[in-house]
Amino acid sequence: MSNYFSYTEHQRFGQGTEARLGRIDTPHGSIETPEFLPVGTLATVKGLLPSQLEELGAQGMLSNTYHLFLRPGADIVEEMGGLHKFMNWKRPVMTDSGGFQAFSLGAARQHGIGKIGVFPGAGADMVAHKDTYKPLAKIDEDGVVFRSFLDGSKHRLNPEISIHIQEQLGADIILAFDECTSPAASYEYTAKSLERTHRWALRSLNAKTKPQQALYGIIQGGEWQDLREKSVEFITNLPFDGFAIGGSLGKSKHDMHKVLEWTIPAMPHDKPRHLLGIGEVDDLFEGVQRGIDTFDCVIPTRFARTSNLLVPYDVDGANKRGTLVLRNAEFTHDERPVDPNCDCYCCRNFSRAYLRHLYKSEEILGSVLGTLHNIHFMLKLMRDIRASLANGTFFELKRHWLEMKEERNHGQS
Amino acid sequence: MSNYFSYTEHQRFGQGTEARLGRIDTPHGSIETPEFLPVGTLATVKGLLPSQLEELGAQGMLSNTYHLFLRPGADIVEEMGGLHKFMNWKRPVMTDSGGFQAFSLGAARQHGIGKIGVFPGAGADMVAHKDTYKPLAKIDEDGVVFRSFLDGSKHRLNPEISIHIQEQLGADIILAFDECTSPAASYEYTAKSLERTHRWALRSLNAKTKPQQALYGIIQGGEWQDLREKSVEFITNLPFDGFAIGGSLGKSKHDMHKVLEWTIPAMPHDKPRHLLGIGEVDDLFEGVQRGIDTFDCVIPTRFARTSNLLVPYDVDGANKRGTLVLRNAEFTHDERPVDPNCDCYCCRNFSRAYLRHLYKSEEILGSVLGTLHNIHFMLKLMRDIRASLANGTFFELKRHWLEMKEERNHGQS
Repeated sequence: MSNYFSYTEHQRFGQGTEARLGRIDTPHGSIETPEFLPVGTLATVKGLLPSQLEELGAQGMLSNTYHLFLRPGADIVEEMGGLHKFMNWKRPVMTDSGGFQAFSLGAARQHGIGKIGVFPGAGADMVAHKDTYKPLAKIDEDGVVFRSFLDGSKHRLNPEISIHIQEQLGADIILAFDECTSPAASYEYTAKSLERTHRWALRSLNAKTKPQQALYGIIQGGEWQDLREKSVEFITNLPFDGFAIGGSLGKSKHDMHKVLEWTIPAMPHDKPRHLLGIGEVDDLFEGVQRGIDTFDCVIPTRFARTSNLLVPYDVDGANKRGTLVLRNAEFTHDERPVDPNCDCYCCRNFSRAYLRHLYKSEEILGSVLGTLHNIHFMLKLMRDIRASLANGTFFELKRHWLEMKEERNHGQS
Repeated sequence: MSNYFSYTEHQRFGQGTEARLGRIDTPHGSIETPEFLPVGTLATVKGLLPSQLEELGAQGMLSNTYHLFLRPGADIVEEMGGLHKFMNWKRPVMTDSGGFQAFSLGAARQHGIGKIGVFPGAGADMVAHKDTYKPLAKIDEDGVVFRSFLDGSKHRLNPEISIHIQEQLGADIILAFDECTSPAASYEYTAKSLERTHRWALRSLNAKTKPQQALYGIIQGGEWQDLREKSVEFITNLPFDGFAIGGSLGKSKHDMHKVLEWTIPAMPHDKPRHLLGIGEVDDLFEGVQRGIDTFDCVIPTRFARTSNLLVPYDVDGANKRGTLVLRNAEFTHDERPVDPNCDCYCCRNFSRAYLRHLYKSEEILGSVLGTLHNIHFMLKLMRDIRASLANGTFFELKRHWLEMKEERNHGQS
């Protein structure tokens, strides 16, 4: 294990849960957990200055190896002193390994599916747009061959190349190279893929050269209990600094909870656990309850750019996803803030009518203010969750949020 | 004259110039002049939070009546408490009258011309794209009929409507409705238009009902000395709170200087003078020297979005326009800040290589950082100009900038 990295468990919540408070220490500072890490795919959390991200209280962020590999290139990031210096972000950074793109550009693209279940209407859409959905990735024992979505050029990623790139990028936490299998994959395919992912885990460990970076192993195995149990046993017996749980997480959120329950209790208490690419409100509660320490997800930032601002479900105007869709005409004359109880810069200073105007006019400031608000929303929720774990009220807080959602979705249309 | 508005001349520079230091007082605070006002066309300076604009030291801004009239509509801005509250900007705001669009959507669109001279290649382009360049505005004695560039809907602007809209918007300084004639217009047309603009000036004064807003008259007359002199005499004898000089400003910058020299010496010393839509570095010096107090221009913000960052001409990599074009490949590996001597947030924290990556990837943060830098550049230059007027070194400062430009443009390619 790296001397530069450690996880300290402060307090276990008990009450039949795996929930816990803890702290991850890295060369760029600490992360009090459980925590949500905003995603900055291309070395920028879209629309925010790093100083704004700091002011919002973000303790860390996640960046994407595959995307940075294509733009601007890992050589350039390394030449500029690594990700932290390149993007002027002084706190911890995690990079993924590019393995998820083996899924999202390969099978997921071909079959129109996400990490949990199938995109609505994906099938019909795919038939109509066969070329659009041609898989851009092929997997073999060595690794993955991608075609760049930018210019069609061919690139290979494998454990050695992924780790090398992640060393060039210089994140505090890097991830083993894996295959994220599809929810549409068979048991047989998933089992075979898992064996290969385990061989890739060993190759990732062997490839790593920099002690100042922590390396997480990734648990795969799809929606099958025996495969997940096999994976967690294999991976946690290797000298990784922490563990990430990768998709496919099954066909429903219920399946995802099962995956967490099959794996986390078998993990050691002195290492952190990350849930990859998941971050809706109920996911955070269910994940924390089952022992997850960190989350990452593009939803808050992507939603912000499509004018979906995250709010508690009981906020007037909220839809079933817990957002206000500010482009909608209903907000044209609405002088209230997005969330009257939110104390972010956006809610303290601007009306829904102004935000609607910005989104309708495609003004940059709409995305900026929306992102400020959505990241604030996520980090505030995680602070509340940490406080509830400390003072024993976690289940009250969870019930409050889930009941709000229930009432919203069954009270009115 | 409004009791809410005044101009105080602090100090005249002398040395054969009309340059002066002064202060404009408005209900939303003061503007130390000479000063540059950033443009926030749609009630947002594209990419910046109002708090960032304040931190940059912007003393005021200009917003566009015509654009706000179409989006979101003046009724909505009024309903939301006016521009200041709508966009959360606490300092002075000026609105134009929409008269400029009578030019830019009419004759300028038809003939491919700007306020000074003709756009390069405009003629050929126009022949190829006749429909694109169909005029969208028609002028008669009453006012202008526009077709919305958004949906083709018809709208009328005239002095009464323009003043009413500007009262709904609630800026501190509003402008009389005028016709901005084309540099391609004949003496006869310009003379006839001027008479009409003068009748519109009277109608604008009569239409105004709100004492808390200052109304500026606009001097027109194209590139003809007798028309400009006639205009300045007519307009300055009306009870306006200040004066703006409108284009056409002739066929070259030399013509523009002449226009300033024919008009400003005839203006009273107790009222402010604004030069509409002009703001390149040499224009600021020439304008200040000839007695201009405030400028507005979209160049700094528009340039920022096309990766053109304003720098002193002697900065390594600067082109003939005094910008670094950060999209260019030459900056791929450049770890220097945009301007090593600049102390803006962008230059203190980011390399040219990072900015190039953001611009190439079309990341929002590129435009945000570029705009922060360019507005800082403009406001810093204006602070330097004010300091040079106070301590008698204005001509040294001007010579320094013009010599840098000269050396840049004739030293290397």
